[in-house]
Amino acid sequence: MNKTRNPVGWGYVEDALSEADVRPVLDIMQPMLNRAAGARRPAPSAQNITLSTPPVSPPKVLQGVVATDHETRLLHAAGRSFRDLATLRAGRPLPAPAAVATPRDERELADVLAWASDTGLAGIPFGGGSSVVGGVNPEDMGDWPGAVTIDLQRMNRVLEVSERDRVVHAQAGILGPELEARLSPHGLGMRHYPQSYFHSTLGGWVATRGAGHFSTLRAKIEDRVQALSVMLPDGSTATTRPLPASSIGPDPNRLWCGSEGALGIITDVRLRVVASPAHKHSAAVGFTDFESALEATRAIVQAELWPAQMRVLDPFEHMVSSAQSGAVGEGALMILGFEGPRDVALQCEAALEIAREHGGTPRESSDGGTGSWRDAFFRQPYMRDALLDYAVIVDTFETAVPWSAVPAFYHHVVEATGDALEQIAGAGGVACRVTHAYPDGVALYFSFYAPGEHAALLAQWQQIKSAASEAVIAGGGTMSHHHAMGRDHKHWVREEIPAAFRSAIRGAKQALDPSGMLNPGLWFAD
Amino acid sequence: MNKTRNPVGWGYVEDALSEADVRPVLDIMQPMLNRAAGARRPAPSAQNITLSTPPVSPPKVLQGVVATDHETRLLHAAGRSFRDLATLRAGRPLPAPAAVATPRDERELADVLAWASDTGLAGIPFGGGSSVVGGVNPEDMGDWPGAVTIDLQRMNRVLEVSERDRVVHAQAGILGPELEARLSPHGLGMRHYPQSYFHSTLGGWVATRGAGHFSTLRAKIEDRVQALSVMLPDGSTATTRPLPASSIGPDPNRLWCGSEGALGIITDVRLRVVASPAHKHSAAVGFTDFESALEATRAIVQAELWPAQMRVLDPFEHMVSSAQSGAVGEGALMILGFEGPRDVALQCEAALEIAREHGGTPRESSDGGTGSWRDAFFRQPYMRDALLDYAVIVDTFETAVPWSAVPAFYHHVVEATGDALEQIAGAGGVACRVTHAYPDGVALYFSFYAPGEHAALLAQWQQIKSAASEAVIAGGGTMSHHHAMGRDHKHWVREEIPAAFRSAIRGAKQALDPSGMLNPGLWFAD
Repeated sequence: MNKTRNPVGWGYVEDALSEADVRPVLDIMQPMLNRAAGARRPAPSAQNITLSTPPVSPPKVLQGVVATDHETRLLHAAGRSFRDLATLRAGRPLPAPAAVATPRDERELADVLAWASDTGLAGIPFGGGSSVVGGVNPEDMGDWPGAVTIDLQRMNRVLEVSERDRVVHAQAGILGPELEARLSPHGLGMRHYPQSYFHSTLGGWVATRGAGHFSTLRAKIEDRVQALSVMLPDGSTATTRPLPASSIGPDPNRLWCGSEGALGIITDVRLRVVASPAHKHSAAVGFTDFESALEATRAIVQAELWPAQMRVLDPFEHMVSSAQSGAVGEGALMILGFEGPRDVALQCEAALEIAREHGGTPRESSDGGTGSWRDAFFRQPYMRDALLDYAVIVDTFETAVPWSAVPAFYHHVVEATGDALEQIAGAGGVACRVTHAYPDGVALYFSFYAPGEHAALLAQWQQIKSAASEAVIAGGGTMSHHHAMGRDHKHWVREEIPAAFRSAIRGAKQALDPSGMLNPGLWFAD
Repeated sequence: MNKTRNPVGWGYVEDALSEADVRPVLDIMQPMLNRAAGARRPAPSAQNITLSTPPVSPPKVLQGVVATDHETRLLHAAGRSFRDLATLRAGRPLPAPAAVATPRDERELADVLAWASDTGLAGIPFGGGSSVVGGVNPEDMGDWPGAVTIDLQRMNRVLEVSERDRVVHAQAGILGPELEARLSPHGLGMRHYPQSYFHSTLGGWVATRGAGHFSTLRAKIEDRVQALSVMLPDGSTATTRPLPASSIGPDPNRLWCGSEGALGIITDVRLRVVASPAHKHSAAVGFTDFESALEATRAIVQAELWPAQMRVLDPFEHMVSSAQSGAVGEGALMILGFEGPRDVALQCEAALEIAREHGGTPRESSDGGTGSWRDAFFRQPYMRDALLDYAVIVDTFETAVPWSAVPAFYHHVVEATGDALEQIAGAGGVACRVTHAYPDGVALYFSFYAPGEHAALLAQWQQIKSAASEAVIAGGGTMSHHHAMGRDHKHWVREEIPAAFRSAIRGAKQALDPSGMLNPGLWFAD
């Protein structure tokens, strides 16, 4: 884990793609983008980015805990949404934290909160900084003149692994691979691999209600939180009782799952994990159209077969993803992966039978194997950076809707987003895949590609994002299935979340964080 | 559904047990109770019970919606906890609602709330009145001089059945059998059978975070709530968006699941249902001791086999339950039931194999079949009334704990409760069964039996309840896995629920119910 975080792009510097990696993809994309690759303009270097907010001087007592150097503040000035990346490239001064704290324990965390409070600064909890929805930016903070970003990276200990309960108790700042490595000797695993897996944290997953590896049954992290602790601005902590289930009032864990750092700083979590799978079985199925593949997806999940992986690519997504490996993908593609403590071949066969009944054709999974899929999956955000060098707008948004809204919802969103691309850029494409499936609905993950202009990326993106978001909300979807609300979705969720619930949460926030210092401006707008 | 609600006992008058039904049970219990059946003193008749609070006169506009007659007020004065039943028998004047409203729609409901508010009365939402934790009693109401009980029984329409989404949208006041009957023609079912199934409501299940039929995987109702609507005291409504999943803030549904009528009146719910099972397979397994049976239970659920039913009786529970059918049950007993859209025989066989590895002996399920179990299950609370006629204290309490706390927790709770029985009554017994099992823990359901005195039932029960509750909390359990908090558990949950969460919920309540009129006194004590 000695890689260097990229201050102006996704993930680690060492994993960034080269010009040679991106060229073939640009060639493939050329017809869709309706232009040849333009001039390459790489992201500026860290020292060439100006931070718009001045640093503050931390007290002596916090020496070694609080940093105010340019690089550190830049690394914590933004997450990694398209908006963040385009802003970093725009050459404008960037709002940044006044200081960055990396407390080693609860006591230092309390000291940091007390100092921020005394100094009149807000506090922005920070996990891996991989937010793609504007979750950690010191912006939109109302009357707060600045913020201390509170990075939990040094609070990353595993406190207990219970083989008996199949629960790991760990501090919030632990990264995905660190946690997995500690579980593996016990024969346990999280089986939770968000695209940010290598540089996102346990606390971040819980604060954003993330999802990962499992497509069914235990897709969302909130279903796996047995208990958690949070620290409040006054330095006090609240710890929920570790329980498999309860009926005593509303579930306390569920208040902090999805709270995005605004209702307390999650300091540790008891997470339900699973046995490392003894058996795996995967398959790929081709469909002539996405609609049939969606129907098969519904039938499989309603048959209670619970595949661990069920990704379903629409024809455009299939074409784009197979092109990157030099193949020609036609029609829709379903990738099925079963795993578990017992043999899963029969379950996989039952799912294939259902897929066949819906017009699917099982195929050799040369381009659809879950392994190669996984590699490509982790590579995608790096490609976004590389394409951005050529002013290609690449972004994704994801949602979930009940089955009854599908496929009209899918067509409407693709059309509305495509229309926006056409209007703004005169070309482009919209792809979609199923990432998670439930008996009552499905999570759809959209990607769009458009030829942008270096000087106008942000404005162009904003228009596309608005059109897509309007279509999602009008169609009955959620603004996010697993990326969270952040600052980017704040406006749109007003239509999604009832006003009374927003009031209730503001009432809860008033009780937990009376000064409103925690991640201000992120929360539900009025 | 034309049965008559019993004003002084569980369920329906027509289903009450006779002296002839209870005699053999008393005979079996005699050694445990260490006395012969004493004098029979049946519950008083409705007209002989005095209500301590006077009725109020409703306005003309609410004629036909609000009743103030003695019988109606008595029927809504209490739930059906042991405390309720003993209070009804104690001959003391009973706190009762000042009026009982049965609105037919949202408009009448808003009118009732406005009238209560204008009159300075609290409002207590009421589903089937089967609370066993003091959820609906107009008591402990602080400054409120009285309450209107708001019975949702006439808001019981099914609004939509979506076969595609496997979701039923129904009003909160619908009873279990009514809802099931409407689903059946669609090939769907709730598969949710709490012991109160025949006289409890959809809204009640959600407000209390109830559990039912399924022992694993989808035991709790809150996992099955896709969306809901609530009405607030000002007559406004909040409706959550129907979604399979989301990551936009904390889940709104989860604020109202378990809110026990104190954060709004649940008016309708979209509930995830399942296909009526095409395949069923059941089995029973004997174990020499409960510890082995618990280990087998853990292994089965951690093997991800997900039996629909998995009840595990400790030797005493097994003895008591088999005695009622004239058999002699020895050792612990596991009852397994698998069901689903596909053949489940293999899963059942895999579970039996695990049970054998843990020392279990599969047996002919003459006394353990899920059918006879179910009949006996629904009959149990009626037996409680019948035994109370003979001053036999019979009550149950249920909890959940992580596996790591088992079996020490079990022994501690049985011992502490048994000690209390011995101290108070000089005899008695404590039985336990597993009702629900999770990969990280288990729900344990305890029953206790003691020879009480007609004149001292309440005080005797209170002492036993306190001893049991202390043991549950000290051992790391929850005060309820599926019965809720109510007034009976209010004191104990202070140790279970972090103070910060109680503050947060009070903040939410202040926003939703500024005057605090909804079910006052039920909520978290300071």
